[in-house]
Amino acid sequence: MTDLSYLACARKLLAARPRLYPQFATHNALTVASVIEDAGGVDGYEFQRLHGMGEALYKALRQKYPAAPCRIYAPVGGHADLLAYLVRRLLENGANSSFVALAGDTSIPIAHVLERPQDAIGRASRARNPRIVLPHDLYAPERANSSGVEFGDRVERAQLLSDISRDALADATTAPLIDGVLRPGVERPVLSPFSRAAVGRVREADRATAAAAMTAAQAGFAAWSAMSVATRADILSHAGDLIEAERGRLIALLQTEGGKTLDDSLSEVREATDYCRYYAAQARQSLAPQPTPGPTGESNELTYRGRGVFVCISPWNFPLAIFTGQVVAALAAGNAVVAKPAEQTPLIGFEAVRLLHRAGVPAGALQFVPGDGAIGAALVEDLRVAGVAFTGSTEVGRRINRALAAKDGPIVPLIAETGGINAMIADATALPEQITDDVITSAFRSAGQRCSALRLLCVQADVADKVVAMIAGAARELALGDPRDPSTHVGPVIDLEAREKLMAWIARHEAQGRVRFRWDRDRPLPATGLFVPPTIIELERARDLTEEVFGPVLHVVRWRPSALDALLGDIAGTGYGLTLGIHSRIDATVRRIVARLSNGNVYVNRSMIGAAVGTQPFGGSGLSGTGPKAGGPNYLHRFALEQVVTVNTAAAGGNAALLSGGDDRP
Amino acid sequence: MTDLSYLACARKLLAARPRLYPQFATHNALTVASVIEDAGGVDGYEFQRLHGMGEALYKALRQKYPAAPCRIYAPVGGHADLLAYLVRRLLENGANSSFVALAGDTSIPIAHVLERPQDAIGRASRARNPRIVLPHDLYAPERANSSGVEFGDRVERAQLLSDISRDALADATTAPLIDGVLRPGVERPVLSPFSRAAVGRVREADRATAAAAMTAAQAGFAAWSAMSVATRADILSHAGDLIEAERGRLIALLQTEGGKTLDDSLSEVREATDYCRYYAAQARQSLAPQPTPGPTGESNELTYRGRGVFVCISPWNFPLAIFTGQVVAALAAGNAVVAKPAEQTPLIGFEAVRLLHRAGVPAGALQFVPGDGAIGAALVEDLRVAGVAFTGSTEVGRRINRALAAKDGPIVPLIAETGGINAMIADATALPEQITDDVITSAFRSAGQRCSALRLLCVQADVADKVVAMIAGAARELALGDPRDPSTHVGPVIDLEAREKLMAWIARHEAQGRVRFRWDRDRPLPATGLFVPPTIIELERARDLTEEVFGPVLHVVRWRPSALDALLGDIAGTGYGLTLGIHSRIDATVRRIVARLSNGNVYVNRSMIGAAVGTQPFGGSGLSGTGPKAGGPNYLHRFALEQVVTVNTAAAGGNAALLSGGDDRP
Repeated sequence: MTDLSYLACARKLLAARPRLYPQFATHNALTVASVIEDAGGVDGYEFQRLHGMGEALYKALRQKYPAAPCRIYAPVGGHADLLAYLVRRLLENGANSSFVALAGDTSIPIAHVLERPQDAIGRASRARNPRIVLPHDLYAPERANSSGVEFGDRVERAQLLSDISRDALADATTAPLIDGVLRPGVERPVLSPFSRAAVGRVREADRATAAAAMTAAQAGFAAWSAMSVATRADILSHAGDLIEAERGRLIALLQTEGGKTLDDSLSEVREATDYCRYYAAQARQSLAPQPTPGPTGESNELTYRGRGVFVCISPWNFPLAIFTGQVVAALAAGNAVVAKPAEQTPLIGFEAVRLLHRAGVPAGALQFVPGDGAIGAALVEDLRVAGVAFTGSTEVGRRINRALAAKDGPIVPLIAETGGINAMIADATALPEQITDDVITSAFRSAGQRCSALRLLCVQADVADKVVAMIAGAARELALGDPRDPSTHVGPVIDLEAREKLMAWIARHEAQGRVRFRWDRDRPLPATGLFVPPTIIELERARDLTEEVFGPVLHVVRWRPSALDALLGDIAGTGYGLTLGIHSRIDATVRRIVARLSNGNVYVNRSMIGAAVGTQPFGGSGLSGTGPKAGGPNYLHRFALEQVVTVNTAAAGGNAALLSGGDDRP
Repeated sequence: MTDLSYLACARKLLAARPRLYPQFATHNALTVASVIEDAGGVDGYEFQRLHGMGEALYKALRQKYPAAPCRIYAPVGGHADLLAYLVRRLLENGANSSFVALAGDTSIPIAHVLERPQDAIGRASRARNPRIVLPHDLYAPERANSSGVEFGDRVERAQLLSDISRDALADATTAPLIDGVLRPGVERPVLSPFSRAAVGRVREADRATAAAAMTAAQAGFAAWSAMSVATRADILSHAGDLIEAERGRLIALLQTEGGKTLDDSLSEVREATDYCRYYAAQARQSLAPQPTPGPTGESNELTYRGRGVFVCISPWNFPLAIFTGQVVAALAAGNAVVAKPAEQTPLIGFEAVRLLHRAGVPAGALQFVPGDGAIGAALVEDLRVAGVAFTGSTEVGRRINRALAAKDGPIVPLIAETGGINAMIADATALPEQITDDVITSAFRSAGQRCSALRLLCVQADVADKVVAMIAGAARELALGDPRDPSTHVGPVIDLEAREKLMAWIARHEAQGRVRFRWDRDRPLPATGLFVPPTIIELERARDLTEEVFGPVLHVVRWRPSALDALLGDIAGTGYGLTLGIHSRIDATVRRIVARLSNGNVYVNRSMIGAAVGTQPFGGSGLSGTGPKAGGPNYLHRFALEQVVTVNTAAAGGNAALLSGGDDRP
């Protein structure tokens, strides 16, 4: 397929002569012959060969086409630049399928070596390698993967943009939704972090409304929990389909209310879809009644049932995905849910609730209570709470834990996913270009407003200057602006408070002479919207970073190989344990770091954001959360009660199993 | 096999003539012929047949042996007595393998009908039905079941008793064991609840020693958690073998220090053994690294690691089994452990720790800290605690939860197994004899000192008088006394405080005229030891029982079918949800009760104690505990951290998986 693509490109290049002067660097005789055939001769382009290689081929070519130009080239440069080039050449030459290898093998007939790729493949329908699973089937047969968009495909992208603008809301409103009825509340506008205009209105719940939601959910629990796991799973999986079908409207809201870029918004819709399908599939598998082994005359079965009313409190940074994930997990396990969206993003949460109801979740099983932190606290303090799922700051998580413990009722589960001071450790063997790409994505995408985002790059001192310069250069190219514009890389931060806190942080380090890069040093930030410039701050030691800076601010420290253990100790010493990046080509180094650090999600030689449901179950340790991991195989059990029912099957007067088992003997 | 046993018994009876006059009630012609053959005639015994059945057989018999006596009988009695008899007859006659059914089937050759059972079986080695799994293999291939003793087999029982007396300790001492070294502490005697004499001495830890244990465990964590899951599992499974091998010594201690009867002591040794083997097997299965599906070019693996130092606080009522279960689960998941035994039973806990160390658990990974509640509190409050496993009272569980929440560190897991007000619901369709047996076992065995013990019998009013009278009659036959005597049913309660509390409870209800039975009404309690008389107290309503009465005291309430829902509401309303018994022959009633009540362990038509590891994973809901269930498939995960490691396998310059995957096309 590579050869075929090469020839197709060659044809396009040759057709553009003389405006283009194509140069074909190849040691493949079939390619050379094909190019001459397609070019109709040897004019208007040239061949190239590597000094010391391909001599026989081009000697033969010159005999037949003395006029064919062939440039001889040789790579020149430093070790750092040449290493990657040579590795690639070695891989190419070492591959059994390479032309050079085939041509040198006398046991292979010439006809096979010279078989044109289009003939080898035959027809287009055979072009795909069936061993490579298509994205949609990545998780088959358990569930369908959510649909992505190939942004490089202009048709696909245009379709997505048209879906979004068609479905965009003129204005949205939301209010407490209790037993399917909208309730009154103090109304206020919801402001866009980009335009600062109202994108909708929210009526917020008061304590009485929160209590009413608990009452309604408790009443709704009975019917929902009595449904079979399979029925609940069908409904929730259907909700995933509805979310996917409504992506235009949801992306429009994510952009206007959440200030999210196009790619982030699409990823979030996908994640919400995946949560629905994943938890539905998990429920079918892991919450189904499970017989346990035991003696004859007795049946034993472990079953799972809902705990009662779960309170789900979600953050603004994934107002659709995390909101949906918590709610669907709690529902899948048979609980009724009271869902409180983040204060900043009630509109998108409301949309999710409406889609869940439309999919078949009874109104009584899912109540929606928009409001601020005080309403969240009121819900948590309610004596009827059977469990809490919370994603947000470590401090609020701790307060919830204390409020739950203060009550005299049962000890109820708190599933908390909280902050992180996420580090990436890069050593001198890593490819600087790759570090740069992954740092830009990890630290600045989503304006750094992901729990998983990179906060602290720890780069080996020997390569630090070069790597930091390269990252700064790439960060300079980031486009800040309207998140609805597909070319925007970095949108606004969520609200004024967040912006002020981040700008003060940057200013403080600027005053200390620690800022190595700042996007707005020689140009203004976008005129409207709550923008924070991507910034690089260099610190003395890893332990100097003691708080989570939730925005596009990357901190850098340098480390010497002799002090790696001390660095790992500093990282562990933060007490957080969410994500961790490692860039190294030495497996032993990777193993050593992983063995020392118990961060929940470790990413090696790639970016450290974008955990996919079921592939990278997400969640940290220590101050970063309680576990179990969201989107992982152990999550649902924490939402459920276990019950074992033991029946004396011989009580009726005999052991029917033994009678019907027969009495065959060996 | 039944026929063969019958004939063997017949032979023994006939041999005892004339001191015995055997009577053979049979409609089986082969049996009749065999008896005559064995008897050498028809003298000195008689046959019997049921009026209206077997007429042809005995007519034929009389023709050949006119002197053969045959008595004709008919059952006479009330419906209640005859029902069970008729059901049994129906089952017998309905069985395809019954002689009557075979003889009536003309397609079956006479030779087959008359084949003697000894010929059908052939030889002794073929006697066992291979479809019936032997007790040892009940959980194969994952693990071996612990070894039991057939108490009816005098040889087996004698061997057990000789093991116990041989290994009994003259005197035992224990002390804080930190990094394998015994530490000083304030020494006091350990008193036997039966003899009230010192059975050993304990040096109790102070706060400084508790802190030293935490320090040592934290240091020991690294090496233990770095071991592979398989290595840890091997060590823990080996510990199970050692516990089984040391059963004599352990039973001796359980009897003297814990006041446990022989059967309870043996069960407890078995449970401890099973915990070791079960958690080892579970660790191998469920804590092994688990790849997750994802796109090519990336590897994703979910792994489990220890959290750090677990504090395990266990109760005196299962001083070996629960102690060992907690510790082994925490160790299996890779944690270091600081174990605090109950104040009343430090000696047996110490034995378990020594066996675990002998099995290969490093001294640093398991620290032993005997002491009272204040030492438990000191351990829980330590900032280094990564998790707590606790079994004990609901009130102490709540205090531990608050102490953990009060700290500023991470939110750590608390696995609490606490109290219960365990009810049994019996309706009028249940067999009174069966209810009685199961109530006696559930309420009075272990002197009612099990978390699972029955506290509240709810019996349908229509049969209540009869059932309560039958239970009282059976309770009267219970033997109270020295727990070392194999004939003892009920031993002492654990300490003076427990006895006084229970006696006051009984006295209070005696004053109210509510005591329906009291073992010591017409005879004295044993002269030495802390005995509490098995007692039956009748209450007005289920909700009158508002606390857990931890001793041999059964409360009874009556219910009318029209008020079943109210009764279930009362039971749910206690807030506890540990064990639940149901006695009914109506499946719909059983289903209705189970649907309404979320008790962790439900037992239908059997006793409600004695949950077996892996068969009846144990633990309740609500005020009865947090879950996950001990001895169940979800327990270990709560002790472990989840970590996902994602590796970009294409970072080195190419996707080797795709290259090696080949390019075959359909």
